[in-house]
Amino acid sequence: MRSPSTRHERMSDFTPLIARFAADTPGSDLPDSARRMMALSLFDWSCVAIMGTKEPVSRIIRSLVRSEGGSAEASVFGESVRFPARAAAMANGATSHALDYDDTHFAYIGHPSVAVIPAALAIAQKMDASGMSFLDASLVGAETACRIGQWLGRDHYRAGFHQTATSGCFGATAACSRLLGLDAVRTGYALGIATTRASGLKSQFGTMGKPYNAGLAAANGVESALLAARGFVSRPDALECAQGFADTHAGERIPPQRVLEGIGSRFVFESVQHKFHACCHGLHAALESLTALRDEHRLGSEDIESVRISVNPKWLDVCNIRSPQTGLEAKFSYRLTAAMVLCGLDTASLDSYSEGVCRQPELIAVRDKVVVMPDSGKPDTQADVVVSMRSGRQFGHSHDLEEPVTLSARTARIREKGRTLLGDAAAAAVWGAIEGLEQLSARQFIRSSLEVCSHV
Amino acid sequence: MRSPSTRHERMSDFTPLIARFAADTPGSDLPDSARRMMALSLFDWSCVAIMGTKEPVSRIIRSLVRSEGGSAEASVFGESVRFPARAAAMANGATSHALDYDDTHFAYIGHPSVAVIPAALAIAQKMDASGMSFLDASLVGAETACRIGQWLGRDHYRAGFHQTATSGCFGATAACSRLLGLDAVRTGYALGIATTRASGLKSQFGTMGKPYNAGLAAANGVESALLAARGFVSRPDALECAQGFADTHAGERIPPQRVLEGIGSRFVFESVQHKFHACCHGLHAALESLTALRDEHRLGSEDIESVRISVNPKWLDVCNIRSPQTGLEAKFSYRLTAAMVLCGLDTASLDSYSEGVCRQPELIAVRDKVVVMPDSGKPDTQADVVVSMRSGRQFGHSHDLEEPVTLSARTARIREKGRTLLGDAAAAAVWGAIEGLEQLSARQFIRSSLEVCSHV
Repeated sequence: MRSPSTRHERMSDFTPLIARFAADTPGSDLPDSARRMMALSLFDWSCVAIMGTKEPVSRIIRSLVRSEGGSAEASVFGESVRFPARAAAMANGATSHALDYDDTHFAYIGHPSVAVIPAALAIAQKMDASGMSFLDASLVGAETACRIGQWLGRDHYRAGFHQTATSGCFGATAACSRLLGLDAVRTGYALGIATTRASGLKSQFGTMGKPYNAGLAAANGVESALLAARGFVSRPDALECAQGFADTHAGERIPPQRVLEGIGSRFVFESVQHKFHACCHGLHAALESLTALRDEHRLGSEDIESVRISVNPKWLDVCNIRSPQTGLEAKFSYRLTAAMVLCGLDTASLDSYSEGVCRQPELIAVRDKVVVMPDSGKPDTQADVVVSMRSGRQFGHSHDLEEPVTLSARTARIREKGRTLLGDAAAAAVWGAIEGLEQLSARQFIRSSLEVCSHV
Repeated sequence: MRSPSTRHERMSDFTPLIARFAADTPGSDLPDSARRMMALSLFDWSCVAIMGTKEPVSRIIRSLVRSEGGSAEASVFGESVRFPARAAAMANGATSHALDYDDTHFAYIGHPSVAVIPAALAIAQKMDASGMSFLDASLVGAETACRIGQWLGRDHYRAGFHQTATSGCFGATAACSRLLGLDAVRTGYALGIATTRASGLKSQFGTMGKPYNAGLAAANGVESALLAARGFVSRPDALECAQGFADTHAGERIPPQRVLEGIGSRFVFESVQHKFHACCHGLHAALESLTALRDEHRLGSEDIESVRISVNPKWLDVCNIRSPQTGLEAKFSYRLTAAMVLCGLDTASLDSYSEGVCRQPELIAVRDKVVVMPDSGKPDTQADVVVSMRSGRQFGHSHDLEEPVTLSARTARIREKGRTLLGDAAAAAVWGAIEGLEQLSARQFIRSSLEVCSHV
C-alpha cells in the first residue's frame, strides 16, 4: 500500500484514505498473524452460522430469499441452492448472528465477522475468487469496520446505533469492493453509497431485529459495491463531509491520525474476542475465573460455602437475573451460570441453557450461594471471583477478557467450541477447509461447511 | 377506522396509532378528494418514471436488478420481464426520482410518490390486487409518510436526513403492509423493521445517491412488510421508544396529538404539489408569475427593459446560477429560466434545458436584464416579479405555490405536463389507465404504462 498516512495527505480526507487502504493494500503486505486470526474467526463464524440456521429469524429471512429466488451466485446456510449475492449475504449475516455467539471487537463494540464475512463470501463465490482472496478481503473488510467504528466512537454506539450494522456495512462494502477489483476511487464511491444505505438500531436488541441488523449490513455492503462497480457515482467524502455519515449519526470523529495509525501494517482486528460460553458476554470473565478455580482446585460443588463475584457495575443491569426461569434468562444470570460451571455443566453448549437447567435442585442450591457485587474500579472486561469452602479455605481468581492469549491456546479453544457445537467429525471437516484455504477456491471452501450444515 | 385518537389512547404510543391507521382504515372511509389527488400523483409519477428510464442511475440499478433476476412478481419501467417485488420497487423508485420532476410535499419536505408508489405497485402486482386497492394503499402510505414526516419535523431534515427516503420508507412499509392484509400488530412490527432499515442522506444531493434514496426507501418498505408477514417480530414502539428512530435521527417529535389530528378522515397528503417546470422547485413560483405576466400582457421579449424577481433568501444559495453553461446548471438559474419563459420556451419540457439553450443570444440578452433580490419576509414558496418595458410600463405579479388550485385546473396542468413529456397519444394511454382504475387490476393497470415506456 502506498502510505496513506504520509504528511501531504489531508487528514480530513477520511473516506479516500479508507478506500485506498481497502483497494491498494497488496495481499502480500497482510501480516500472517492477522490472517491467522481471520482464519480463526472464519472457523468460529462458520460454526455459529451452521448452528444458527434453525433459529426463527433465520428461517423467516430464508423464506423471503427463497421466494425471491434469482441468479445462483452464492450459498446460503440451510439451503441447497444458491441465490443472488446480496440475498445470500443477508441470510447468512442474520443466521450467523442469530445465536449471539459470534466474535466481538471491544475497541468499537461491534461484531465484525457477521457483517463482513457473509458479504465477502457471497461476492467471492460470485466472482469465483480464490480462498486466500476471500480471506484477505474479509480481513481488510473487518479492519475497515474496526477503524471506522473507532472513528465513529463510543458516542455513536451510546446514541443508539448498532456498530455491528453501521460500521459493519462499511467493512462489508470494503471487502466486496476489493473482491470486485475496484480501484480506490470506485471503492470511495461504494463507501459513499454505503453511507446513505447503512442503518441499524440498538433499540431492536431483544427482538429478531438484532440479527437482522447484521444481515442488512452485509447485504448493503454487497449492493453498494456492485453498484459502484457499474459506474454509480456518489459523494467521495461521504463519511466526513458536512451532513455526511458521522455528522448525522452522532459520530465522535476520533482524530483520523489516531484512528488510522499504522493502517495497512498493524491490524486492530487482531484483538478480536471469541465467545467461549453461549451466554451474554458480560458473564464471560466471571465464568473464565470460575472454570480456572474449578479445574485448578478440583472444587466439588457440595463443599462450597459461598461464591463472591465482583464486576463493573454496568453489568448488573444487563446480566444479573437472580433466579432465571427460562433458557434465555439463564443466559443473563451470573448466579445460575456460576452454578453451572461449579457443577460441571458445559457453558459452551447451546443445550445447557434450558428451563430444565433452571429447575435443577443441585444447581439452585449452588446458585443461591452466589453473591454478585459491583466494583466501579474494574474495567468491564474483568471479573474477580472468590470461592469459600465449608472447610474454611478460600480460592480467588481474576480474569480480564482482554488479557493476551497465545494463538495456539486460542486456536485450541475455538476448535473445542466448534466440537461442542457441531460434534467432532463435522468440526473437523470445517477446520479442514480452513486449513486448506490456500489450495481451495472460495466456492470449494464453502462446500464443506454446507455439507456439514445439511446434517446438523 | 376505530378512532385511534380517542382519549384513552396513550399519545406516547405513536407507532401503534400509525399502524392502526394503515391497517384498519376501511377503503370506504377514504375521502374522494384524497383519492383523486392520489390518482393525479399516480399519473404524474407514471410520466416521470417513464421518462426517467434512460438516466444513467436508472440504467445502473436496472443492470443490477437484471443480473440478480428472480421471481417474476412485479414490473420495472424499462424492462420487458418482471422481477421480485423488492427489486422492482428499488428500480422504479430510483427511476421515478431520477429527473427530480416528481411531486413534493412541503409540510414535511419530501417527495411522497417516488418512495410509496413503487413499493405499493410492486406488492399490488405480486398479490394481484385490484386497481383501487393499489390506489388506496398508495394513499394510505403517502399519508403515513406525510404524518411521520411532520412528526420528525424540520429538525430531522435540517440535520441531514432525506425525508423522501426516511419518512418515505415508513410510508412504503404502511402501503405494502396494507396490501398484504397485515393486521395492526404485524403492521407495527413492519414499521419496527423499517426503523432499523430506513436511511438516506441529503449529502448525496447532486449525485446518483439522491434518486437511489427513493429506490432504497421503496425497497426497504417492501422488505419490511414481507418479513412482518412471515412472522418477524421487532419492536412495536420503534419510532418513539428510547433510542428508537426519532431519538437517533434528530426527530423533532412534534406532539402526536397535533401531528395525528384528524388522521383517517383528513388527508394531509392532499396538499401535495406537482412540478410544472423541469427545474429546481425553488424557481417555480417565479416562473409561474412570469408565465402569468407573459400570457396576460402578451409581453414581447425584445421590448423588455428589466426583470426583478424577489424571493426568500434561502433560494439564492440553491438556484441562482447567474450565467449557466450546461443543461443541469440551467435548471438552477433564475435568470436563464426567466428568459426562457419570456422568450416562449417550454420550461416543462426536459429538452429545453441544454448547452445550446445556455448559448442562445436572444436568451442571454433577456437573461442579463434579470435581477434577483432576496426578501426575507417572503415564505419560501412565494416569488414577486416586476417586468419593466422600454415603453416605461411596468407589470407585476406575485405567486405562492401553496395557493389553492382547483382540482380541475390542477388536472388540466398535470395532463398538459404528461403530454409535454410523453407526447399526446402516450399521455392519453396512461391517463386512460388512471381513469379505468376501478375496473382494472393493478397488473392490468401497469400494462399500459409499460407499453408506453417501451416506445419512448
